[in-house]
Amino acid sequence: MFSHNKRLQYTLHVSETNPGLANLMLEQFGGAQGELAAACRYFTQAIGEEDPGRKDMLFDIATEELSHLEIIGTMVAMLNKGAKGRLAEGVDSEADIYRSITGAGNDSHLTQVLYGGGPALVNSAGVPWTAAYIDSIGEPTADLRSNIAAEARAKIVYERLINLTDDPGVKDALGFLMTREIAHQKSFEKALYAISPNFPPGKLPGKPEFASVYFDMSKGNDVKGPWNSGPQWEVLSNPEEQMAVDGGSGEPTVTLAADEQALVVAMAARTASDATSDPLTGADLGMSEATALEALDEQLSRK
Amino acid sequence: MFSHNKRLQYTLHVSETNPGLANLMLEQFGGAQGELAAACRYFTQAIGEEDPGRKDMLFDIATEELSHLEIIGTMVAMLNKGAKGRLAEGVDSEADIYRSITGAGNDSHLTQVLYGGGPALVNSAGVPWTAAYIDSIGEPTADLRSNIAAEARAKIVYERLINLTDDPGVKDALGFLMTREIAHQKSFEKALYAISPNFPPGKLPGKPEFASVYFDMSKGNDVKGPWNSGPQWEVLSNPEEQMAVDGGSGEPTVTLAADEQALVVAMAARTASDATSDPLTGADLGMSEATALEALDEQLSRK
Amino acid sequence: MFSHNKRLQYTLHVSETNPGLANLMLEQFGGAQGELAAACRYFTQAIGEEDPGRKDMLFDIATEELSHLEIIGTMVAMLNKGAKGRLAEGVDSEADIYRSITGAGNDSHLTQVLYGGGPALVNSAGVPWTAAYIDSIGEPTADLRSNIAAEARAKIVYERLINLTDDPGVKDALGFLMTREIAHQKSFEKALYAISPNFPPGKLPGKPEFASVYFDMSKGNDVKGPWNSGPQWEVLSNPEEQMAVDGGSGEPTVTLAADEQALVVAMAARTASDATSDPLTGADLGMSEATALEALDEQLSRK
Amino acid sequence: MFSHNKRLQYTLHVSETNPGLANLMLEQFGGAQGELAAACRYFTQAIGEEDPGRKDMLFDIATEELSHLEIIGTMVAMLNKGAKGRLAEGVDSEADIYRSITGAGNDSHLTQVLYGGGPALVNSAGVPWTAAYIDSIGEPTADLRSNIAAEARAKIVYERLINLTDDPGVKDALGFLMTREIAHQKSFEKALYAISPNFPPGKLPGKPEFASVYFDMSKGNDVKGPWNSGPQWEVLSNPEEQMAVDGGSGEPTVTLAADEQALVVAMAARTASDATSDPLTGADLGMSEATALEALDEQLSRK
Amino acid sequence: MFSHNKRLQYTLHVSETNPGLANLMLEQFGGAQGELAAACRYFTQAIGEEDPGRKDMLFDIATEELSHLEIIGTMVAMLNKGAKGRLAEGVDSEADIYRSITGAGNDSHLTQVLYGGGPALVNSAGVPWTAAYIDSIGEPTADLRSNIAAEARAKIVYERLINLTDDPGVKDALGFLMTREIAHQKSFEKALYAISPNFPPGKLPGKPEFASVYFDMSKGNDVKGPWNSGPQWEVLSNPEEQMAVDGGSGEPTVTLAADEQALVVAMAARTASDATSDPLTGADLGMSEATALEALDEQLSRK
Amino acid sequence: MFSHNKRLQYTLHVSETNPGLANLMLEQFGGAQGELAAACRYFTQAIGEEDPGRKDMLFDIATEELSHLEIIGTMVAMLNKGAKGRLAEGVDSEADIYRSITGAGNDSHLTQVLYGGGPALVNSAGVPWTAAYIDSIGEPTADLRSNIAAEARAKIVYERLINLTDDPGVKDALGFLMTREIAHQKSFEKALYAISPNFPPGKLPGKPEFASVYFDMSKGNDVKGPWNSGPQWEVLSNPEEQMAVDGGSGEPTVTLAADEQALVVAMAARTASDATSDPLTGADLGMSEATALEALDEQLSRK
Repeated sequence: MFSHNKRLQYTLHVSETNPGLANLMLEQFGGAQGELAAACRYFTQAIGEEDPGRKDMLFDIATEELSHLEIIGTMVAMLNKGAKGRLAEGVDSEADIYRSITGAGNDSHLTQVLYGGGPALVNSAGVPWTAAYIDSIGEPTADLRSNIAAEARAKIVYERLINLTDDPGVKDALGFLMTREIAHQKSFEKALYAISPNFPPGKLPGKPEFASVYFDMSKGNDVKGPWNSGPQWEVLSNPEEQMAVDGGSGEPTVTLAADEQALVVAMAARTASDATSDPLTGADLGMSEATALEALDEQLSRK
Repeated sequence: MFSHNKRLQYTLHVSETNPGLANLMLEQFGGAQGELAAACRYFTQAIGEEDPGRKDMLFDIATEELSHLEIIGTMVAMLNKGAKGRLAEGVDSEADIYRSITGAGNDSHLTQVLYGGGPALVNSAGVPWTAAYIDSIGEPTADLRSNIAAEARAKIVYERLINLTDDPGVKDALGFLMTREIAHQKSFEKALYAISPNFPPGKLPGKPEFASVYFDMSKGNDVKGPWNSGPQWEVLSNPEEQMAVDGGSGEPTVTLAADEQALVVAMAARTASDATSDPLTGADLGMSEATALEALDEQLSRK
Repeated sequence: MFSHNKRLQYTLHVSETNPGLANLMLEQFGGAQGELAAACRYFTQAIGEEDPGRKDMLFDIATEELSHLEIIGTMVAMLNKGAKGRLAEGVDSEADIYRSITGAGNDSHLTQVLYGGGPALVNSAGVPWTAAYIDSIGEPTADLRSNIAAEARAKIVYERLINLTDDPGVKDALGFLMTREIAHQKSFEKALYAISPNFPPGKLPGKPEFASVYFDMSKGNDVKGPWNSGPQWEVLSNPEEQMAVDGGSGEPTVTLAADEQALVVAMAARTASDATSDPLTGADLGMSEATALEALDEQLSRK
Repeated sequence: MFSHNKRLQYTLHVSETNPGLANLMLEQFGGAQGELAAACRYFTQAIGEEDPGRKDMLFDIATEELSHLEIIGTMVAMLNKGAKGRLAEGVDSEADIYRSITGAGNDSHLTQVLYGGGPALVNSAGVPWTAAYIDSIGEPTADLRSNIAAEARAKIVYERLINLTDDPGVKDALGFLMTREIAHQKSFEKALYAISPNFPPGKLPGKPEFASVYFDMSKGNDVKGPWNSGPQWEVLSNPEEQMAVDGGSGEPTVTLAADEQALVVAMAARTASDATSDPLTGADLGMSEATALEALDEQLSRK
Repeated sequence: MFSHNKRLQYTLHVSETNPGLANLMLEQFGGAQGELAAACRYFTQAIGEEDPGRKDMLFDIATEELSHLEIIGTMVAMLNKGAKGRLAEGVDSEADIYRSITGAGNDSHLTQVLYGGGPALVNSAGVPWTAAYIDSIGEPTADLRSNIAAEARAKIVYERLINLTDDPGVKDALGFLMTREIAHQKSFEKALYAISPNFPPGKLPGKPEFASVYFDMSKGNDVKGPWNSGPQWEVLSNPEEQMAVDGGSGEPTVTLAADEQALVVAMAARTASDATSDPLTGADLGMSEATALEALDEQLSRK
Repeated sequence: MFSHNKRLQYTLHVSETNPGLANLMLEQFGGAQGELAAACRYFTQAIGEEDPGRKDMLFDIATEELSHLEIIGTMVAMLNKGAKGRLAEGVDSEADIYRSITGAGNDSHLTQVLYGGGPALVNSAGVPWTAAYIDSIGEPTADLRSNIAAEARAKIVYERLINLTDDPGVKDALGFLMTREIAHQKSFEKALYAISPNFPPGKLPGKPEFASVYFDMSKGNDVKGPWNSGPQWEVLSNPEEQMAVDGGSGEPTVTLAADEQALVVAMAARTASDATSDPLTGADLGMSEATALEALDEQLSRK
């Protein structure tokens, strides 16, 4: 069960309203790498987790991410606060309001017109948040890797946002949030390696004959590195060696029942191409009239 | 530039048509963890990459994932091949066709009615593939971690699909595809650790005072583990210590210009709640007539 | 800031695993009328709200909805718990597992194959949750009405789910969740009517000449009711009266600059239809050869 | 069956072309609160409705909303008309065209490049309209509340758009459209209260012991109001009282079959955390080489 | 302006309720090739169209498609009518209701639980309709081709649905709807070829040296046909001839300002791979302890 | 199987970095009419195709579209290259960076903040690519028409982009890409007409009595053209003739089982409107207090 306290986890001091900046901050409120995604990711994993230690950790961090969602949402609300009343009360001239929501450095029109300056669960382009951003699949050796990666991405987006503002209070709070992603990544790393073995993930082993092969499928400017050279790797560069690596023909087959076979043949016959024809086409008809008439004539003469 | 050869990377032998199984295989064709997602992920990273070695690796693997997309798509087509002609040619009785596409073990109606049995870029529930599945952000120390996690997830989904079928040719090809995810994960791991340092990702350091704190925000059944104990961690368990950790009040503030302040006040006044009222409401009106009349009466008597 | 306790708000006793039922319950976990939608709706409104009383109420209820999300998610996890290990450990025969995830009464294949039996933020059809479900717009007289409606819808979906199961523990917990929607609706009704006036919502008055008109635009089986009859309504039934109700021509106009006008004319000329032609078309070409030749011939003879 | 007349329901006079304003108007054409959403909402309800009076009303209003969709779409087309020929005919210098579609006050590039200046069913941020905006659930006491709320929201968005423009013809037409939302809300209100009782919505009563409880789950700045005080409410403030309100333990349980239990145990064992370890992690490896070597050494010395 | 009459364009007689069939019919109500897509496609084109003849035609057909949407939606409502009351009134045993909405031949649970048996704007898999299905771009020579293709697709989906049912009234109405797609395709074909020239679409001519080249990029089982042979085509088969067909190097270049160049270099340096390293990785750590220790040891010995 | 060569199909020379232009180019990378859509469309059709000639053609063109995706993606990367390092290395003042990503002529904030300047599979508004853009349905006479239309649309979008830039290298490469759409359209036209007959598409004939009827459903400014006049057409203009064209009543019917009928009646009774009431509503309550009291009083007096 959740409880809430109206004090924030981190005190937020915004120097002045700035709807354009508010709009950029939405990236971490309703964006792909933002705090709602983080909270939902860990919360759903926590519910499904059997290991009591990981369950505890996932609930701890999910709860913190919800508290971060509150901080970043409050930042959006503060940055929009001055502009919010403008449209609602309609006291400026229309031209002033229009300029204020569409001017340079300010792509906040959706936030203003549709959401009235409130924090909305969209990214900085106005795309609604979707659970398609969440990649949990219910196997801890995969999910913990997903969490590690998610924290790394969120850290970078915060870093970019910090580089964009010189409001000291905003910068300070973003710095706190960025730092917490580092701490969470460390926790998830510890949790991953506390499962042993954790590679390959899951239970089934791979086919040994393909687990250390590197297929060099892109030619030109080839570079050697630890990802394709050294004792762990066998490199196959020749396209011929890369096809049908099982030693077969590379042709797919399926066994059809007799009636299925008959229907496939019937369908193929109905829709067969006459590869030897040179039919008049819509494109021929669509060219200039002279060209089309000439094509018509030629076509008829061939019949 | 891409080239194509109609021989598959792995020879595929399907024992019999099975549209229900085809439908499940769509998970790796047009699903979140599937081969289109993998190919697009690495291809877009390859284009944006500056490091020649990683660029080469990303193109190599993107090209291989496209070749896997072809294998899994061909598998869907083979499994549907017998059923495909049925709707197109309409020779069975209607009841037979209806049963064949809606029967138990077969949730393939969308595939049949909308896509005619062809491989479609949807997952096994029919949800269209979306680029929201792709989490590349253009920073290699984050993107490589995302790739490692993506390969781990794909490996698991293949493992689950292998557990679902006893068609030996399908099982064999899925085993090949699963194994390649293991190999790719190994390459991405090598590429990540060939960048040094790679943690924390990006350029900005965190705030040291918060980088090793663990906020114990979920109470009950607390467990210690390497993710929250040992010399690397300082644990804060008391909710009071978790609020306003900067030492401030936890109250957000923003400095408003005078006219902004006036508008906010006007808007607040216009929409203020009368907290001392006990208004008659739509819910009161909506209850049984007797109850509503009683409420109306009481309301009037208070005026 | 949020805190969490691993005890649920309501104790949940599930009689036996039932993945098909789990799948239906997802409707209230990651569906349009579900608990995530509710929590996000009130949480974002709370952050943007200026009135201290409504802010408090919105945070109270948002926090409770998160606690309900935990209950319904836990219900999904419990109902899937028996099935979860099956795919992960792969000990049954493949045919058994296949039947168990695709059999009648069980459309849970997405949940099983993609999410490994964990609770996922999708609805019962597997469609990922989207913030497009949230209709907050940042004006309390509208948002409170949206909240009232949302609670009414959620109440109904719970009622339908209750009608679907005879597991007493599931029924009991769903009854609790359904009841809370009733209580929340009552709170939101009180909050709406504590704002006075609250109709029409917002600040601008309507045009009086159109505010009480009822346009009878659908003919046949017309019915009178309080929504279109009585002293509050003026009914316009004749289509002629319904067009251009401002008394104008009903033709849209725009003043174009001279150069704009010229370009519009140029574009119109380039793409003008020859309305007097009877051109040969792709459809003509596509009919049987005899028909097409005849059409070709006729076409040429007209030139 | 529908019929159409090319005269608009309201005559539209646009003073000059303005693609930036056109872009904002899309909010009511293809946006969440726009006219397509309204028309689809009422049309689908009308089809499913059994009550002849409500069916008539829903068809009347759906038909009017389609007529409004035509007005707002025509407004978009008029505002774009001057700009439309520019890209199509390509007569300006490229720099002029580029500036005209990306300049300040004009975020219409998507409308121009992708849609050629035609009205598109997207919102002002370019997000395609989705039926996820429609919240009809097929129960009139819920759907009518949803309709009331939808009209309130649409009224506010029109109010904001009116505040944004000083083109008198645009303002006038928007005023008409806004007013009609007021009239529709009144009709839906009448229709809701013509069903008695309508609260609680649906058929099942709630559990009386929870229907009047208010859970005070957010602490700090608590406020009393009619939504949580007075004779209708029992307030529970203590977190302990809020957990497991059924009087149970708050621990979820499920009865598993023996083979299910065995598989859950096997899966848990395979993925168990060693909570007493302090494993070397990827993050450790990713720090500077010196740090990593030190960690490696320490790790080995502990073995 | 639209008007409505409650008589349908085609009389519909449904023999018996059948929710499973209702669910399939949703494909043409809220699916990609369905009637809402058709109506919206032609309606938005009509509004933006300058040619009076095409504008008239587009409004005629858009209005008819809305009337078809009503027919197919009514069909869904009729097929669900018997089942609708079941959940709403809850009189059967729970097991009966559960079976009735999840049984074989019936994937209608979303329709029942979420939409209460009403027609919803989703496809047969429950995916909400999206304006991403609409491909109008505001150029008639492209849009008319899109319309021709759309009618062809809709015709096929109706054909498949007809093959699925033996209810004579359903079959009859579907036959009418299918036939109208044929008529509409013919109209759009006439309208396309009444514009001359209409190929290539738009205004800019292509580069002549590339307009008749066929790049044979897929090898194996190559086939000649009118699409790649005959006097209109020059075929390039050799991959070397297919690269950098402009005669350049095939290497992309961009001119950077000096400060830009410096930043790119700095970023590349910070994230450079050490291609000569063979770093220990997370995958190495994740294998069995013995393997990991060996790798650690080898790693240290190399330092 | 695919192979790749790092030389592009067309050499690309970009004159200077321009993130605003890069953003517009995304339309053909991750937009509805872009190269990923094209590649996926033809690739999935190729896999499902039975005719060897069309299969070969579809693989040829799919492979070329992938090579075009690489060109347009590389163009985005080149145009962003100068800006990319800026956020990553953070060396400018914050104000400079903020201006550079939000200034006039530059709506690239999403590309910069979320994707770090890399090419992302979104359109120019930031909407993620979705497979809902792909309209393949597995019947060649429909799919080839869809392909023809798709090539026409892509040609136009390239034409618009060419009109927007004066960078000669960008213009040149766009010209190549545009020309190839023309060539592809020609191939698909040839392939369509090499199937005979191909109209009507599919197998079922239409109902002859409705295949040549034109329903004139939009009145005012009616225009005759080849799409509705001439010997091929019978025009029905009178709305009465357009309703129930089968000669029936236009009223839908369904035969219900007795228990179904009873439930429908029960549900209708429970939710029946009292059409003769004039109930007090929430809107009445929501007006000014005086008005509401008056309404209350009147309401009571009527009881």
